[in-house]
Amino acid sequence: MSLDATLARIDADLPDALDRLMALLRIPSISTDPAYAAQCKQAADWLVADLQGLGIAAESRATPGHPMVVGHVEGDGPHVLFYGHYDVQPVDPLNLWHRDPFDPAIEDTPKGRVIRARGAADDKGQLMSFVEACRAWKAVHGTMPCRITFFFEGEEESGSPSLIPFMEAHKDELKADIALICDTGLFESRVPAIITQLRGLLGEEILLTGPDKDLHSGMYGGAAINPIRVLTKVLANLHDDRCRIQVPHFYDGVPELTPEMQAQWQALNFDHAAFLGDVGLSIPAGEQDRSALEMIWSRPTAEINGIKGGYTGDGFKTVLPSKASAKVSFRLVGQQDPHKIRAHFRSWVQAQLPEDVKVEFHGHGASPAGQMTTTHPAFESARAVLGAEWGHEAAFAGCGGSIPVAGYFKSILGMDSMLVGWGKDDDQIHSPNEKYDVESFHKGIRSWARILDAIR
Amino acid sequence: MSLDATLARIDADLPDALDRLMALLRIPSISTDPAYAAQCKQAADWLVADLQGLGIAAESRATPGHPMVVGHVEGDGPHVLFYGHYDVQPVDPLNLWHRDPFDPAIEDTPKGRVIRARGAADDKGQLMSFVEACRAWKAVHGTMPCRITFFFEGEEESGSPSLIPFMEAHKDELKADIALICDTGLFESRVPAIITQLRGLLGEEILLTGPDKDLHSGMYGGAAINPIRVLTKVLANLHDDRCRIQVPHFYDGVPELTPEMQAQWQALNFDHAAFLGDVGLSIPAGEQDRSALEMIWSRPTAEINGIKGGYTGDGFKTVLPSKASAKVSFRLVGQQDPHKIRAHFRSWVQAQLPEDVKVEFHGHGASPAGQMTTTHPAFESARAVLGAEWGHEAAFAGCGGSIPVAGYFKSILGMDSMLVGWGKDDDQIHSPNEKYDVESFHKGIRSWARILDAIR
Repeated sequence: MSLDATLARIDADLPDALDRLMALLRIPSISTDPAYAAQCKQAADWLVADLQGLGIAAESRATPGHPMVVGHVEGDGPHVLFYGHYDVQPVDPLNLWHRDPFDPAIEDTPKGRVIRARGAADDKGQLMSFVEACRAWKAVHGTMPCRITFFFEGEEESGSPSLIPFMEAHKDELKADIALICDTGLFESRVPAIITQLRGLLGEEILLTGPDKDLHSGMYGGAAINPIRVLTKVLANLHDDRCRIQVPHFYDGVPELTPEMQAQWQALNFDHAAFLGDVGLSIPAGEQDRSALEMIWSRPTAEINGIKGGYTGDGFKTVLPSKASAKVSFRLVGQQDPHKIRAHFRSWVQAQLPEDVKVEFHGHGASPAGQMTTTHPAFESARAVLGAEWGHEAAFAGCGGSIPVAGYFKSILGMDSMLVGWGKDDDQIHSPNEKYDVESFHKGIRSWARILDAIR
Repeated sequence: MSLDATLARIDADLPDALDRLMALLRIPSISTDPAYAAQCKQAADWLVADLQGLGIAAESRATPGHPMVVGHVEGDGPHVLFYGHYDVQPVDPLNLWHRDPFDPAIEDTPKGRVIRARGAADDKGQLMSFVEACRAWKAVHGTMPCRITFFFEGEEESGSPSLIPFMEAHKDELKADIALICDTGLFESRVPAIITQLRGLLGEEILLTGPDKDLHSGMYGGAAINPIRVLTKVLANLHDDRCRIQVPHFYDGVPELTPEMQAQWQALNFDHAAFLGDVGLSIPAGEQDRSALEMIWSRPTAEINGIKGGYTGDGFKTVLPSKASAKVSFRLVGQQDPHKIRAHFRSWVQAQLPEDVKVEFHGHGASPAGQMTTTHPAFESARAVLGAEWGHEAAFAGCGGSIPVAGYFKSILGMDSMLVGWGKDDDQIHSPNEKYDVESFHKGIRSWARILDAIR
């Protein structure tokens, strides 16, 4: 059977595929709110039933939190694991939605038809794009294209507390040759992107204490050390004038882009003016000898995510505070070791403190960067076929954020992940009026059919 | 009649004087809480009755807020105005008091007998120390020592909203040769201090905006400017390595101490180790070529009183915030012009901002320093006699804080103020378990008798 037959089947079945997606979107599976536990279970059961309808041995597996959905298709050829999540973000503030977030509808917009609902893009529409590709394949071929493990999580939007224990307990069952993750987007809403590098994340909280109580700045100002002053001095040294991070050994293990990646990224013609213009900015603020795309994809960063000290209410209070604190995070790349950087950062802060100022540190997460080994033939196969679907050669791209599950697949199951997805920049995930383009869904299903065809 | 007779009368009358003070302390005249308006009026009426009992023409004068008490004693010689306030701070947190704050008692403590009550030290005990001196004088002499205007306010703890309008409207009535203000303390709880310089205060709030919305630091981190980073860079430049303030022209109008003052202050043997040790510190943190006493009395300061930006709750959020803000105040001395410094500060901040960061400024108060002209003979007279009472030569001292009423006496009534008081460092004013030493009250009354005797 040719791929064309499968693609034709997908085109013909689109209205039904949309109906199925709408049914899933009607289930308010908000994982972070315990009030929606039954709805999360309902979404898992819906998926189990749908997979079973395709002849797949699927089950809902209880966890201390929301259930996992696991399904297996036996077969020859490569063994892939497909990951998606059926839970969604909360919908507040509800008054900013122009319709009920759990009453999905197809809407015509100036940019085309969209599926409007919470979870449409993140991640139910993306998850179903893979399931629908399998459905079409089965309809045309009578079998599945290869050996597939389906693995759907219901806690991705609430920190995935059950994920690691579940993986640890089911290593043998879940291990495959490669994981396929559909939770990312197109580059600039048009270029298909295969994410091959994810930045890691290290969080640190600094709490400085100067005087042992809040003081009156009239009585003590001038003589008593102000911990906010010290904190600003320390944090101001995080970046030098060229925005290089000044923590010693911070850049150990930061790789340069390979010439191939450099050429690929150059070819993307990233419109950094538009990227920054969207948020009211104009000038890339990172290392001044790097391109804007490197800044967000392949270079490490240090950001002050929060700072607090003294009186911050309305009006004025001439307090000389006892304490000041900041939350600092580092996005990590390549072989940067989060634990070593944590130690270097703490010593570096400590060394800058006057004798009268004490410091406490609290760590918040420490995950290294993910660099996919792209030697698995799936990567090149996917890149080749995605260009045909989207009319633009696919890119091996970086992702500034962290998708922890990819790291766990590597560390627990020893398997690389190929992250592809069909989301667009304006999908408003996590925000009111989330949508997923019908084009994303349709071409997404077709893309998976092409990928499965290429890698089987 | 000799001064000795008056002092003897004061000693004999102390139990009754304490009883009168306790009666005033029983009135919960919390000015900031509208629920206590009747009690504020009651305290004013109590004082009017007490002054009238001394044959003084006293009245409670209505204001849009709490009443003023004004009383006049005609007579020859110098004309002094005595200022004190009858209102008190709120008592929260009440559970930290070991007795009802408005059920005063004399308590024996390891450091001596104390009067325990809200307002005992701030300012009812101090106010009554003057009234009791007048009472004893009258009992011994049959007349008052000189021409006196009594002026008691009931809004000092709530920003004195009625003070300026009342002074403006009663200039002729209130004008005297010199104002006596009893709302300060002893130096290091043992050396009588006449405050001759008060620092001014300038408050500024900076609000920086980078991106026009909060961003995800994974997606934008590295490329988008972080306003907290910019704010820390700006604020870190406030002080150089020697703690000199770097705003241009900031030190314009800052005088050097006169050799006389320098000698006097040196003679105080200020124990900065104990002063800082009380609050958990050890090293004076101001300009490194100045003494600790200069740092708090005669040198200008810049303090960051508050800073805020990004996520400051529990846990961690990798936000790259749109906004960051800080509250900065300057204590001013000599001829420093708060309005010029405000303008210089704003230009200095502005000049450090990257193109993509916008700033808003909000001013909070701008009062110049107060420098008393100590040529009025009352200053030297008081200094001479206070030594006799306290066993330690009195000092012309600075005060790091601001006592606005002294500035208003100067600007509205053209009159210098002599600030003396008997409070001790451990009086816990504005805090739970406020107290006033019986010694402060007793020797305070005797001190006023000596001062009145010397200046009449």
